[in-house]
Amino acid sequence: MKVQIEKDLLVKALNSVQSVVEKKGPPILSHVLVEAENGKVKFFATDFDLAIWVYTDAVVVEEGKTTAPARSFFEIAKEFPSQTLELKSDDLGRLDILAEKASFQLPSLEPSDFPVDQFEEEVEYQPCNAQLLEKALSKTAYAIPVSGSSFSIAGLYVYCDSQGVYKFVSCDAFRLARFQIARDELGLNFDPGEIIIPRKGVQEILRIIGDAGVDGVFLGVHENVLYAKNDRMTVSIRLLDASFPAFDSIIPPERPNKAEISVDLFQQVLRRMAIFTNQVWKHVNLAISPGILEISAGNAEIGMAQEELSINYTGQEVFKSSFNLKYLSDAVGAVSGATFCFEWSSEMEGGFITDPEDPGYTAFFMPMVTE
Amino acid sequence: MKVQIEKDLLVKALNSVQSVVEKKGPPILSHVLVEAENGKVKFFATDFDLAIWVYTDAVVVEEGKTTAPARSFFEIAKEFPSQTLELKSDDLGRLDILAEKASFQLPSLEPSDFPVDQFEEEVEYQPCNAQLLEKALSKTAYAIPVSGSSFSIAGLYVYCDSQGVYKFVSCDAFRLARFQIARDELGLNFDPGEIIIPRKGVQEILRIIGDAGVDGVFLGVHENVLYAKNDRMTVSIRLLDASFPAFDSIIPPERPNKAEISVDLFQQVLRRMAIFTNQVWKHVNLAISPGILEISAGNAEIGMAQEELSINYTGQEVFKSSFNLKYLSDAVGAVSGATFCFEWSSEMEGGFITDPEDPGYTAFFMPMVTE
Repeated sequence: MKVQIEKDLLVKALNSVQSVVEKKGPPILSHVLVEAENGKVKFFATDFDLAIWVYTDAVVVEEGKTTAPARSFFEIAKEFPSQTLELKSDDLGRLDILAEKASFQLPSLEPSDFPVDQFEEEVEYQPCNAQLLEKALSKTAYAIPVSGSSFSIAGLYVYCDSQGVYKFVSCDAFRLARFQIARDELGLNFDPGEIIIPRKGVQEILRIIGDAGVDGVFLGVHENVLYAKNDRMTVSIRLLDASFPAFDSIIPPERPNKAEISVDLFQQVLRRMAIFTNQVWKHVNLAISPGILEISAGNAEIGMAQEELSINYTGQEVFKSSFNLKYLSDAVGAVSGATFCFEWSSEMEGGFITDPEDPGYTAFFMPMVTE
Repeated sequence: MKVQIEKDLLVKALNSVQSVVEKKGPPILSHVLVEAENGKVKFFATDFDLAIWVYTDAVVVEEGKTTAPARSFFEIAKEFPSQTLELKSDDLGRLDILAEKASFQLPSLEPSDFPVDQFEEEVEYQPCNAQLLEKALSKTAYAIPVSGSSFSIAGLYVYCDSQGVYKFVSCDAFRLARFQIARDELGLNFDPGEIIIPRKGVQEILRIIGDAGVDGVFLGVHENVLYAKNDRMTVSIRLLDASFPAFDSIIPPERPNKAEISVDLFQQVLRRMAIFTNQVWKHVNLAISPGILEISAGNAEIGMAQEELSINYTGQEVFKSSFNLKYLSDAVGAVSGATFCFEWSSEMEGGFITDPEDPGYTAFFMPMVTE
């Protein structure tokens, strides 16, 4: 293999694959596969569950392929002393990266050892509304558990119900986030069935959307793998094989009590309350009465905080409960408008956060038992 | 105690004491002492070796003193919802921080438990040239070992020789940094004797300099404590009681060979070479011949790098040796000019870095034995 490639393009391509490169595990997973063919260089990395490939223009003098440690290769590209690099490999088990007065060699592994075959490139893709997909993912990603357990699944549940409404749901034993959007609006013309996208896969789709040019974002499903691509890169995501909790039963369609609260003022209060929490003492207390929200936190040892916010609430029902501060803050953080609604049925059944500007969004959390 | 204080002044004062507040150890050391008197509030913190006090204007309604956890107090001040705060304490073992619709309470400790008496405030201070003091400290601080051992002292050695030249010296078993400046230039009219300022103390003096207003910086020594102050804050630093290695013997006054090298280009090369080092393999190889510096790094496992720089060297002596990359980079980083000089007597005796723009600066490092 021998190619001339622009520094900026190389940096961008290598940056794109870093998030799936594994530092631990088999050495091949810390490498990026580099393949030169037809005036393009393909960069490919995988951690078995996720794979990313990126195509970049280059002058291909001699076709071929090799591998190199993805992290070092990226760092050399970023710091490279000239705007054009020459990449060269032969059978010596190394990649040469050359400029006029500088030469770098990185160790290569056998390209055929790369686990590429388990990813299908010939998938049927459908376009979708990238902006709405971004909304659906970013408003629910925060509640995906970092790791799965028997009570929680570290993935985002996505399905299209019989009314043609897509639901995106994340939850653990204590909270839930849901975003609903009509299939026609989302613009996806196929039904993937019920799928669970792993946490890291959701992040990668968000990156594909963030990086998309005018041509937009395309999705496809083939067997148990979800594919997302833009005009520059493709990511394949092995879907989780699990059954998702029956969340619908915990979201009552009607919550009779509703208070409207400023997002900014509430988040500012939470930042101060957070000073009065620690690893063990994580909750804030909310007390809602007509026109007033009282928020308090802390204990004698940490110190105590109490604040009042004016709110729009005319109901007669007084609400008092305690919630995990971070869960509240995450849920309010996903609201698009300047205010959010706090809704409830009864004190014991937890609280709901909804967005007057975006009726597709609902968050729920359980009260914390603090005494 | 009862005072009204401006948020911005409180934030600045509490920020200034954070660096000496200890998270571990006796609880009192994680607190800041707050003392209101004569229209001023004094904030004081100490870790026994260092102490800082800051005076801030305030409306003192009732004089008195208390303590509060320094970190939480600072965080509340930063996030405080109004521009003026009321601080209040009585005998209830707490500090109240109040605004119209918010109240915060932090736990207090007994102010008389604060170890304040061991620091003398009535010291004879002398002004000094703050800009030159900053230069002397920042060009030598990098080589102060993080912790002391029988071979290295975690402090900066300062003394004034019989010719009236101040020397600032830091070193460990492998490298040394020295800055020399005439007493008259530095403007210090007293001789502190031979002192060793602990690493953290050097950082605090640099902060005093960085924060100084037009009135400048003043120094004083009283027994084994060095004091540095500006118009807003004072730091006291317990000096190290140790004997410093006889460094003069390893710096020969004449180094017959000298190459002049671009600071920028050299540091750029080092950044790339650093990609080919790791926790164990830390060195770069330098090869100096007429007009050319060859720099290389790495091994078969990490990968290998080689670059050439044009340099100003007309000598006949060829120099080849290996040095710790970080030590080289630190030493060149303290050079003021656009070029530095690499000087040597013989390959086996290490290398020197000097600054054509600033003859007061000399750095030295031992070669690394790599085979």
